[in-house]
Formats: sequence, structure tokens, C-alpha cells
Amino acid sequence: MTPIKYVSKVDLTKSGDQHPGVHNRWHPDVPSFATIKPGETVKIECLDWTGNQIKNDDCADDLRNVDLTRIHYLSGPFDIEGAEPGDCLVIELKDVQPLERRPWGYCGVFHKENGGGFLEKFYPECAKAIFDFEGIYATSRHIPHVKFAGLVHPGLMGTAPSPEILKEWNSRESELKEKHQHQHETEVALLPEEKNCHAGSATGDLLAKIGREGARTVPGRPEHGGNCDIKNLSRGSKCYFPVHVKGAKFSIGDLHFSQGDGEISFCGAIEMAGVVTLSASIIKGGVEKLKLKSPMYVPGEVANHYGPSRYLTFEGFSVDEHGDQKFLCLTTAYRQCCIRAIEYLRRFGYNDYQIYLFLSTAPIEGHIAGVVDVPNACTTLGIPMDIFDFDIRPEAEVKKLDMGNCAFVSGASHAVTFDFDKLEKK
Amino acid sequence: MTPIKYVSKVDLTKSGDQHPGVHNRWHPDVPSFATIKPGETVKIECLDWTGNQIKNDDCADDLRNVDLTRIHYLSGPFDIEGAEPGDCLVIELKDVQPLERRPWGYCGVFHKENGGGFLEKFYPECAKAIFDFEGIYATSRHIPHVKFAGLVHPGLMGTAPSPEILKEWNSRESELKEKHQHQHETEVALLPEEKNCHAGSATGDLLAKIGREGARTVPGRPEHGGNCDIKNLSRGSKCYFPVHVKGAKFSIGDLHFSQGDGEISFCGAIEMAGVVTLSASIIKGGVEKLKLKSPMYVPGEVANHYGPSRYLTFEGFSVDEHGDQKFLCLTTAYRQCCIRAIEYLRRFGYNDYQIYLFLSTAPIEGHIAGVVDVPNACTTLGIPMDIFDFDIRPEAEVKKLDMGNCAFVSGASHAVTFDFDKLEKK
Amino acid sequence: MTPIKYVSKVDLTKSGDQHPGVHNRWHPDVPSFATIKPGETVKIECLDWTGNQIKNDDCADDLRNVDLTRIHYLSGPFDIEGAEPGDCLVIELKDVQPLERRPWGYCGVFHKENGGGFLEKFYPECAKAIFDFEGIYATSRHIPHVKFAGLVHPGLMGTAPSPEILKEWNSRESELKEKHQHQHETEVALLPEEKNCHAGSATGDLLAKIGREGARTVPGRPEHGGNCDIKNLSRGSKCYFPVHVKGAKFSIGDLHFSQGDGEISFCGAIEMAGVVTLSASIIKGGVEKLKLKSPMYVPGEVANHYGPSRYLTFEGFSVDEHGDQKFLCLTTAYRQCCIRAIEYLRRFGYNDYQIYLFLSTAPIEGHIAGVVDVPNACTTLGIPMDIFDFDIRPEAEVKKLDMGNCAFVSGASHAVTFDFDKLEKK
Amino acid sequence: MTPIKYVSKVDLTKSGDQHPGVHNRWHPDVPSFATIKPGETVKIECLDWTGNQIKNDDCADDLRNVDLTRIHYLSGPFDIEGAEPGDCLVIELKDVQPLERRPWGYCGVFHKENGGGFLEKFYPECAKAIFDFEGIYATSRHIPHVKFAGLVHPGLMGTAPSPEILKEWNSRESELKEKHQHQHETEVALLPEEKNCHAGSATGDLLAKIGREGARTVPGRPEHGGNCDIKNLSRGSKCYFPVHVKGAKFSIGDLHFSQGDGEISFCGAIEMAGVVTLSASIIKGGVEKLKLKSPMYVPGEVANHYGPSRYLTFEGFSVDEHGDQKFLCLTTAYRQCCIRAIEYLRRFGYNDYQIYLFLSTAPIEGHIAGVVDVPNACTTLGIPMDIFDFDIRPEAEVKKLDMGNCAFVSGASHAVTFDFDKLEKK
Repeated sequence: MTPIKYVSKVDLTKSGDQHPGVHNRWHPDVPSFATIKPGETVKIECLDWTGNQIKNDDCADDLRNVDLTRIHYLSGPFDIEGAEPGDCLVIELKDVQPLERRPWGYCGVFHKENGGGFLEKFYPECAKAIFDFEGIYATSRHIPHVKFAGLVHPGLMGTAPSPEILKEWNSRESELKEKHQHQHETEVALLPEEKNCHAGSATGDLLAKIGREGARTVPGRPEHGGNCDIKNLSRGSKCYFPVHVKGAKFSIGDLHFSQGDGEISFCGAIEMAGVVTLSASIIKGGVEKLKLKSPMYVPGEVANHYGPSRYLTFEGFSVDEHGDQKFLCLTTAYRQCCIRAIEYLRRFGYNDYQIYLFLSTAPIEGHIAGVVDVPNACTTLGIPMDIFDFDIRPEAEVKKLDMGNCAFVSGASHAVTFDFDKLEKK
Repeated sequence: MTPIKYVSKVDLTKSGDQHPGVHNRWHPDVPSFATIKPGETVKIECLDWTGNQIKNDDCADDLRNVDLTRIHYLSGPFDIEGAEPGDCLVIELKDVQPLERRPWGYCGVFHKENGGGFLEKFYPECAKAIFDFEGIYATSRHIPHVKFAGLVHPGLMGTAPSPEILKEWNSRESELKEKHQHQHETEVALLPEEKNCHAGSATGDLLAKIGREGARTVPGRPEHGGNCDIKNLSRGSKCYFPVHVKGAKFSIGDLHFSQGDGEISFCGAIEMAGVVTLSASIIKGGVEKLKLKSPMYVPGEVANHYGPSRYLTFEGFSVDEHGDQKFLCLTTAYRQCCIRAIEYLRRFGYNDYQIYLFLSTAPIEGHIAGVVDVPNACTTLGIPMDIFDFDIRPEAEVKKLDMGNCAFVSGASHAVTFDFDKLEKK
Repeated sequence: MTPIKYVSKVDLTKSGDQHPGVHNRWHPDVPSFATIKPGETVKIECLDWTGNQIKNDDCADDLRNVDLTRIHYLSGPFDIEGAEPGDCLVIELKDVQPLERRPWGYCGVFHKENGGGFLEKFYPECAKAIFDFEGIYATSRHIPHVKFAGLVHPGLMGTAPSPEILKEWNSRESELKEKHQHQHETEVALLPEEKNCHAGSATGDLLAKIGREGARTVPGRPEHGGNCDIKNLSRGSKCYFPVHVKGAKFSIGDLHFSQGDGEISFCGAIEMAGVVTLSASIIKGGVEKLKLKSPMYVPGEVANHYGPSRYLTFEGFSVDEHGDQKFLCLTTAYRQCCIRAIEYLRRFGYNDYQIYLFLSTAPIEGHIAGVVDVPNACTTLGIPMDIFDFDIRPEAEVKKLDMGNCAFVSGASHAVTFDFDKLEKK
Repeated sequence: MTPIKYVSKVDLTKSGDQHPGVHNRWHPDVPSFATIKPGETVKIECLDWTGNQIKNDDCADDLRNVDLTRIHYLSGPFDIEGAEPGDCLVIELKDVQPLERRPWGYCGVFHKENGGGFLEKFYPECAKAIFDFEGIYATSRHIPHVKFAGLVHPGLMGTAPSPEILKEWNSRESELKEKHQHQHETEVALLPEEKNCHAGSATGDLLAKIGREGARTVPGRPEHGGNCDIKNLSRGSKCYFPVHVKGAKFSIGDLHFSQGDGEISFCGAIEMAGVVTLSASIIKGGVEKLKLKSPMYVPGEVANHYGPSRYLTFEGFSVDEHGDQKFLCLTTAYRQCCIRAIEYLRRFGYNDYQIYLFLSTAPIEGHIAGVVDVPNACTTLGIPMDIFDFDIRPEAEVKKLDMGNCAFVSGASHAVTFDFDKLEKK
């Protein structure tokens, strides 16, 4: 038996838009890069989501400047032989690995002026942490005393939209922007943008059209999946996608070595280049048969596994950090979980940005608890205690350790301790 | 060794307000019912949340009429010897069991005019399912072909608020009501209400005062826990609470034999009377030491355990059922997960109300996936496939089974199939 | 719904042989005590295996004198309606709990002259530890600093033998005794013995016959199960038994709150009185259909759950404690695992008998690794580190704690440290 | 960061004895191949245990002829900087993977005249199955309808013996052979053998000496580990070895993609060439500190994970296949488990050799249950039901599938169904 066939390779010395087999917009007309037969197992290499823009160093300048029109360089699209609109495409993720030639990844907090993140109001600065991969484990010189196994997964997988679906996306996201942008300090939606559009081998008019119409890749979308950032959609998962165009035009990328639920810092998982081993199959007429309006999946049987009693778990409610009462808002509740975890973990010597990056990358469990007890929704955030090399239990004696620092932009240090108690009601 | 001491017993033939050892409001002045010594293990019996209002029958009339001023009959409050404001109260839940003399429980969808639930817009009617307990398992004649082990837990635990905290609660919830009630069809918050206030042995002026000022029990609140409905806060869990008044005045109740994440039908878990075995201890000055602004906990090591690859998992995004684009709203996303699961499961013969009750009670996993990919948040809902006695995998052949029905109010049947496709943009 | 029906109750103030619903021999003619219908869920109370001979105290005199003709007082036999020879009896263990009125159990090392145990050559004395039950947990004043959740199970379940099978048992065990007893210091098999035979309501000639012919209960036997001591055959398990006589005549007893794999100290689990909730069903002709020569089972989904990385695991090989080379002997290998664990754990202050009792009762994992690499078989013994309240990892600093002692016979203390290094080749 | 350093590479076109960095005997004088610094993470390639003797085809001739003097081509020995006798060497297995350039492995039943296996009396012939690796999964055209994730591990790791220990090994194994070989049909121990001895760069007198004195690699041995074949000693495990010579001289090999507990067919796991990522550290004086007479380990947190209720579990007792009563013999008991599993699984269409190979390679759990209930020891064998693509539960309807066949020697087919019932007492 010969080695498994690669249908796509990447060049780590070239930027994303120099690759003919990657694209960074969703559009039915992005040219197919290769064809995969049902049942065939293939390997697909993927760039990191920025297409080689980030360096393994101790400075966040590269991250500060990432242009959101130049991200999510996805491998594909791949035609799946025989797939037609209305079918269900089943992708079996047989493995996801970092590239042997690049045994590291990174996590970043985006600057508030450049996309921000879940806690941008408190942590507006740009920060970066590099993670080294040694076998199944990641460690970071920027977040010491932590080591964890990767629940490696693609942050982004999806089928191409039909023209109708694409139109629907653009319309509903524009509407949101029109109605609600004024209430927000950061972008509420990223609309089609010709600048820096890359669509594989497309050039000229076709490329321009894709740029004008193509949906941006940041949000996951119910109709096809996309940037879902589901940490448990890892090795061994079977994922079921609706097919909207002939061949399905499946794309994959934004690989993560590990991610915490929520991917809270936005560039938030351990971002990496890597290689996926997968096979595809088709359930004819599966959209109707399975009532498949959004992707669904069954995870694999191999995963990090800590035992329920090893999670220190924080509770959050939909009363925000100012003490304002929200109505059954899980988003507010989960933000409070994050804040509680930050306040707890800084006792050991980490600064807030380090913890922000930690919560974004480690195998953190973010669960919905109650969503009907008006007016408070409740969520939980569980931290596996075994990934620290010291004892973080509430009963343990606290010894502050030298935790170093994460990377910031040139010359800066934002090793802050944000005082949440000073916030007042708005 | 003698049997473990009961500090509280309940009478299943009497209503909640006939019990001197239970109360249904949060107030610092609710008289303590008993004292528990640190380190001592005790048993506490609890009424079901309605205080015996629901019958084991096939009619939902009893549920239709539940008055929300007469709910959450909690056992306690209990003074913990030595606890003082600023301490952390550690409750170790050593067991939670149904009462041997009442081996059944119930789940209800509340009528939209009486509280409603997470899917009240589509399922406004009242419905009920009775569950029989046989050892570790529950089954329901109203939701056939399903059997699952209970992850038994108290839906509600908390310490008493200080007068200041109570004031804060009342103020912020009133404010919400003032500002936002007009946008909602159901109550956004339940404010203090003298009617049907029950405060253990309190009578006369004291009772009246508690009724006027006492916080309602429906929402969990960050300062003390309360009605969190965290399904994993089960047997073996250690829970850490802030203490706000001398003795802590700990209360517990609203026991659940099992619950799905979200407790979506509101009366949403398998509600039951039962007995808790617990011990208490105190970390002096723990609020400051642990930065304990909200409860946190470590689950126990005994739990239902299905293996990751046994969960059929649905994805939901913050595009609502009308196709309207919401901004990073996990609540919207989780509602879409629920709808996807309903559409899928009805293929096997269940009607929508049965599935609604099922999702509310079975050990459903509701997880946060991504919460930064503007404008779409993503959540997942995982159903353990092993709790069905038929094959629900996407690959399985579908045979519709006779699924009977759940209980509705006298004479009614709402065995509906809601057509989500007919919803239009608002 | 009324409480679940008890088909058998026990009296904790009376000895085993005063109970008409229990028996201590296997024989087809033991009178049936009650009938269970297929599909019906019932409760069965069980005595502890000695039938109330052991006291909750700090002296092992009671254990020293346990007469092995007066043990295993099993509840039953129960007729299962419709069961006939050749059928498969399916028992679903819906729960196993200690009795609320007796929240404690015990573990004992039997004296070498009275049955001994797996390590009798090194630890010939009698020792005892009492365990207190608080909810799902057990602790022992005789083995401090350890707390674990019970994987509660019946040590013994089985169907009655047919006359032919009984004859086969007696013949093969007699043969063993004849051929090999001279090589052993303790009994190699316990043959039928009229003395202290108890067979429920049987009296006179019938009782005498059962005594003369009835198989002793100590060994599990392939044809029907019996005293298998399988710790994972716990709550939720479905167990499949061959039926050899009309009605199956199912018996159950020897309940364990917890046990380590191997049950090495013989009276080796946490022995307790308790109550089982179970239902029975029948697969007609199941012996042939399932090729069912020995019982098989599927465990339940609720169990203690520590995560693979929480087990400190010792390796043992079939080179015995004298350095003698055995041939692919798993029994020798597992004994070496036990010795390695004893030598390791005594670093923390426990004496050898305490550790012997610990390994016998805690949820220890005993696994077969390799059994073909001539001449050495290899086994492993895994200790869940989370059940200690101090750190037992190899990396941890060792502080000897005051570990008290277990109970011995009046006036004695055998808090020994056996010097395995002094053993010489035989 | 540069890719992780390889300290050893293998050539798949050359036989084991053409590699200067591998050896197939244990001896303190085998020349060290490289040095590893404590804390450094390195990669080590390993040959399959036969050193490239087995082909990916449908004929077992290659396996039939494997000479047991030409096996276990181990990578190493590696000096660990600073290690001295009496220290504890800690190996952290950060990953174990098949080689990308050889995505397949094999399992073999050795012919009874060439080593045999655990069931050699019933299955004396040679058989082979090829497994293809696709990501984390293995499938075999020779055992259809089964797919499982690999719990990849080195079957063999160990430190070099001191001259004294080597002498002890040779003496005790010779003694066994002298005393007991006459009772066995296959070899009870493999003594030193100059023929085909390979010791890395050693030549001439040194090689001859190593051949004359060097211990064979088949058995694991308590003093240093060696061929333990512990399936759970997989990715993420930390393993603690005694050091007996300066530098420790650590060797590793015999990689397995997957193995069932017991590795029953001898060439019994999925044997493969592969690459290990590991780091080493030293606990000075660790042998005395940890009472380390045999290796111990803590598994990693990433593993196949099926949930307890997904194992169909067979019970075995120490009454052998002839009905002869053995005394507390776990080896006999485990053999009965295997036979029960074979009799059960053949209902679905597999022949006995296929099942033998299956039990040897799939993630089968072999556990010790009771080892004190004279005269019967009890073991269990658990099969994860999820690895079949059809339903193997006892309740499922049986449909015989076309199961093809495994490979046998040229021209032969031994697709037998051994009739265990015909065996008579010896």
C-alpha cells in the first residue's frame, strides 16, 4: 500500500494569495481545485488562517497588522464526485495534525480596533502567545506551567453556497449592519470586499465578481457550516453537510491545535498550519431525509479525557460586569464566567492577557446550564485542573510563581490586572 | 454507627406552605430552621418545586394552574455553625436521591400565559410527562422508547442575601422590567409579591415584610447561586458559595432526577421530591481569598458516561428562526439547536411536545462553540444516542414507531408538528 | 405509582440461618422463596455475606472466628416466571444501595488458617477495617486520608445448577482436592458440608440432602456465575445467565460497596447488607442462540470516572517474590503488582495490612497486559490517585502522615512492614 | 522553531541487522547509538518488530518463516545524559505514530511449531491479517466490518541490564527450561543464542559475547520492563524505569498501532514501523526513593473512549476447556474468556482465526475480577461494540455477513470452527 494521496499541499514560504489551491471568500464560482471520490481517503494540507503572516517570536507586531480581508486561506474547494444539491455530504475526519515541518502555532488577542474579541472592552490591546508542539502536547513560553494535549480540529469546514443562499447571507448581514452598527464600537458584520479577495485560480472578472459578492469567512453560517470553531469536531468526527451546488465544493482550513469553548480571544485557538486526513461520502437526498438545515456531527472516540471531578467550574449569569440586568442572555452569562476565571487564576501570578489567551486555547468546557429562569441565563466554564503543573484547587495553598509574560506589540507591556470592581452601572 | 441524621423531613400529603421548614422567597430574615455543624453529614428531604401540586396522571390540568407565586418550596434555611459574612461555604453533595415513597417525577411545558419556556413562541400550550424511577433509571409512558440514568441534582442551592444584596436584586430586576417588559409577551422578571409568600415559621409582620421585600426564586443570581439548574452539579460535587449573613442561611430544593442543558421547557427537568445527603464546611475569609463573586464548583466523579462518539450533535447559529441575523447571541443559537433536534427526532414518530419534553429532561449536552465570529455565535446540542432503544444515527433506516402522546390539559391534544419553514422574516 | 415492591427483606438483628428467604448452598432443590415476573421491577434486600456476624468496632475477633460453612447468605432463590432450561435469564441491575439503616460495611483479611487471602504468605494474620457510607462515598477510620465513591455491586449472582451440573462441580473440585491439596497450606476447594447448611425453608431430609450435595458458594463457576466478584458488574449492568432448572432459581447476595480488582484480601471488598433493584427477562433458547456457556454482561453507563491519566500503574511479571521464574502465570504477575503497590504506598505512613485492605476495597484496576511473551506474563494494577487527600504522584514530596491503624484481634497489633527483599529463592 | 530532532531513522528497504542503530538482544555492552539530554524532546524511528520481514499481501508464508532469533529490532540503546545506576529514568511518550511512508501493519498467529500463541492448542496454524491505517483508524481487508482507533504504543521499552541482572535472568530462565520444558510442546523460554544476534555497531568478539550472554527480548522482565505489551502505555504516558548501567541505555521498539489486552496471538498486536516522540528525565536515587523494583507508569489523557456501557463482556473461570479444575489460575480464566468470545462472534460469520486475530488487535479490555475465591479465579474480556459496523448486542438480530477470510500460508485455508464441546477431560 502506498502512502495516502495528498490532494493539496501548502508552501510555508509563500503568502496565502500565492496559493492556487486556497481561497478566502465563499462563492459558488470559486474554481474547484481537485476532485475527491466518495470512499477515498485523502490528505489535505492547510495554511494557518492568516496564510503565513505570523512569526514565532516574542512580539505581536505581526498580529497587530493582520488585515481582516486577508484571512482564512482555506484549502479547496474540492468537488466530491456525484454530489448534487439536496444531498448530504458526510466528511469523516480521520486525522488532523500539525505539519512536521512547523511544530508550533500561536494564539492572539486582536486589537480592539482590528476586530477585538469577547473581552475587548477590558482588554483592547493586541497580545500573542506562541505554542510549541511536542507530540500530542502543546506548551507556551508565554503562558508557563501549563501543558495540554491538543483536541486538534479544523475551525472551518463548509460546502459552497448556492447563489440564492449567498444572496440571503449578504442581505441579512447588511441589514444587521445597517440597523445595529451604530450601537457597537467594533464591526458587527464583515460585508463582501473586493480588496485582497483570493479565489484560487480565479482571475480577472471572475475574481472581481467573487470579491464583490463573495461572503466573508468570519462567521459560521447555518446553511453550510463554515467557521464554526467547534473544538469537539476533532479527529474521528463524522460531519454531515447540506450540499448546495454540484460537486458540493467543500473547503477546509483554519486548523486549531487546541481551543477553549468560545474561542474567546478571536484569533483565539492555537492557530496552525497542518494536514487533514479525511474521506467523503454522500447520502443522496440527505437534506430532506435528515431534515438537514444546518450541519450536524458525531464526534470521534479519541479525545482528551480528564474525568468529571477534575474540572474547576465557574458559574456566570446574565447580569453584566456593570451590574446591569440582561434578559436570558447566554452571551452575557458566558462573559461573566470568563471574568470569574480571570479573577481566580490571576492569584497564581498570571496577568490578565495571559489568562485571556489561556482560556482561549486550553480545552476549556463552556456549557449552557439554564436558559429559562427569567431573567437570568446561567452558563458554566470548566477548567481541567490537570493541565497545570501546580495545584489550582480552591483548597490548595497559593504560591505566586514567576509567570513571565505574553508578547505585546513592540515596546509595550500590558501585563494588566483589570479592576472589574471599579465598573459602574451604565 | 447510627443512620445519618435528618435535619429536615417533608410530608407528601401537605402543601408546601404547610411546612415550617421550607420557604419560597430569598430574604435575610427568613427564620433558620436548623443548624448544621461543619464536617457533619446530614440528610435533608425536599419537596418537589411546586410543593405537591402535581399528580401522577395523564392530564396537565394541575400544571396549567400552577401559580408562580407558589413555587420553589426550599428546605431551610440552615445555619452553618461559625459561618460569617465574607466566608466561603463549601457544600459537599454526597448524594441526591428520589424518595423511596415517591418513585416518580414529572416534566412540564408551562403555558405561554403562565411563564412559558424557551420555545414558547412555537409551543404555547401546556404539556406534561410523568417519569417513573426504577433504580438509577427513568422512563416515561409519555415519551416511549427512551430510558436514561439520572444525573440527579438540586436545581437550586444558595445562601441568603444580605439586605444590601437583596436591595440590589430588587433594583436591577425592577429596572429591567420597567425598561424592557413592553418588548416581551411573557414576564421578563418576577418582582417581590406578598401573595403566597411562605417563609418557614415566620408569621405576621415578619412574613409580610419578607413578602414585600423578598426576592423571587426563579432566577439564579451571581451573588449567591440560587436557581442555577446546572445538571452537572450532581452527586459528589463540591460547591463554593459566598456567605452574606451570619450562619450563611443555606437553602436547597427544586430537585431534578435528570435535566438537559438549558432546562428548556421551564418546568423543565424531571422534577421530584427527594433527599439530599450533604456536609458543610467553611473557608474563613474565602470570598476574598478565592475572589468568589459567584459560586463555583467541582463536579463529582460519578456520572452518566457515554463516550464522545455516542452523541449526535446539532449545530445552532445566531440567525433566528425567521432568518433574522442576530449579533453573537448564544441564546438564539441554542434555540436553533433545539429546533434542529426537534425536526430530526420527529422523523421517528414523536410529536413536537414530546421532543420538547425530551430535550428538557434527558442528559442533553448544550455547549458553547464559538462566540467571537461576528455576527454568528455557534452552540451545539448533543443527544446521547444510547438512551434510545432504537437506532437514531443518520445512517440508520427510519421506522416510525407508535410513540403515544404526552399529557395535555383536559380534552386537548396538541400533538403538533410546527412548520418552521413557514416562518417569515420579521 | 406506589413504591417498588420488595420481594425479600432482611432482619439485621437475626443471623443468616434464621432467615427463611436466604440460603448458603447451591442446589436445585433449595425451595424457591418468591416468584418474579418478566418485566417487573422489584427490590431485594440482602444480608452482608456473613449474615450479621461482623460488628462495627475496632477489633477483628469477630472476623477471626467466621466459620466458612456459615457464609454467603444469599437472597432467593427466586423463580422467574416462564424460565426453562436452555433459556437465557437477563437480569438488569437497576440499582444497588446500602441499607439506610446500616450505613457502614467492612473489609477483612482472613487469617491464614481460616481461608487466608491472595497475600497470605506474607500477611497471615487477621485484620479488619470498617467503612462508613455517606451518600456515594466511603471512608474508613482504619485507613485514613482516603475517600472514594462506591462502584456498588453484588459480588454474587447466579442461577441454580441442574443435578448434572452440580454433580460435575462436586466431581471436578474433589479431584482437585485429591490431587493438589498436599501442595498447599490452605484449602484448595471447599467441598459439600452438611454442617451449617441453610437452605431457606428446607428442613429435615431435604435440608440434609442439600447439605450433603450442595455446592459451596465460595467459587464462581462458569456454568452459572455465582461468586464472581466482578466490580464492574454494578448499577445499570445487564447480565445474561444460562438457565438450568425450571424457573431459573436466581439468587443474589454478597453485596459490595466497593472492591478492587482481585478482591485480594478474600473478605475483600467493602462487605455490606443492602438492597438491590432489578428486573428480569428471558431470551427463549438463549443458551444456544448466544452460545452462552458462562454468563456475560454489559456494564451500566454510570460509574466512577477518573480519566486515564489519574491512575498510578504498577507492572507485575510472572517472576515470583522469591525470584523464581513461572511460566506465563498471570496470578503470579498480579501478586507482584500488589507487592509493588504495597512497597510504594507504605512510604506515606500506612502499614502493610492497611494497604492490603486498601487494595482490596478501593476502585483498583487490575488488567491483563501480555500473556504470550514466554515465560513472562505481565499484568498491571492501577490506583486512582484522586481518592487520596494528599499527592501520591512519584514527583510529589513525601510527608509521612499519621495513619493510625486497622483493627486486629484483641490485644494484637500487626502493623508490619514485610521485607520482601529477604525472601530467597526456593 | 525547527522541526524536532531525529536521533534515529530506519530504512524500510533494509533488514534489521543492516541497521547500526538497532539491536535484538539485551546486554550492558551493546554500544550506545546516541545520547539524549534530559528535558530534550526527540524523535526515534523504529522498525517493525521483525525488521521488514513481513509483506502487505494475502499470504502468510513470510510469517510462517520468521525466525525467533531475528526479531525485536529495537532502536537504541540511547544514553541519557547523567543517568547512573540507582536513578529512575522517566520517559515521557509524547507521541507514537506509524510512518507516513508505510501506512499499514499486520497481525499474525504464529504456527505452533514456531512459537505459537495463547490458543495454540486449538489454532496451531499460521495466519495473517493486514491492517491499513487511515488517520487514527485501522481497518483490515482480512477482518471486515470492523474499524477502530489505535491506542498506539511501543510494545517494548527498557533500560539495559547490569551484568548481575543479566546473569540472574539467564539463570532463572535456564532453570525454568530445565525443570519444565518437558511438560510443554512449545518453548517455555528462549535462552541466549549467538545466531542472528545483532547489537548495533558491535562486531567481532564483542558481538559474539553479546550473542552468548545477551538475554532474548521476548519476555518482559520486572527489573527493566522490556517486552511488556501494555496497550495503555500509549501517547502521553510517563513511564518510570530503574537504571542499572551508566547512561541507562534505553531502547524502544516493537511498535503497535493497536492491541487487545493479552496480545493473544503472539505476533499479536497490529505490528508496525513508526516514530516515537519522547523526552527523558532523571530522578536521582529514584530506585530507592520510589521503591522501584519494576517499572510503573501513568497513562496519558488521550485515549479511545467508549463509555462503560458499550462493552460486551465475557466471563472466564479457572476451569479449563477440558473441564479440568485449576487452582486460582488467571491464565486459564482468561483463556476461557477468549474462547467464549470466539464462540459468540462466529455467529456473525467470522471464522475462528479471524476472531483470534481480532481479539489480539482490537482495543479489548482484559480485567482481573476475583483471584481469591478458591478454586476459581475469574477474569473478564470486554469488547467495545462500537467498533463493528453492525449490531453485536445479544438483543440484536443476527445476520451472517460475508466476512471473507484472513491470510494463511500458500494454498491453505484454515477457516475453521473449532468444536470446544468435543474436548474431553484429560
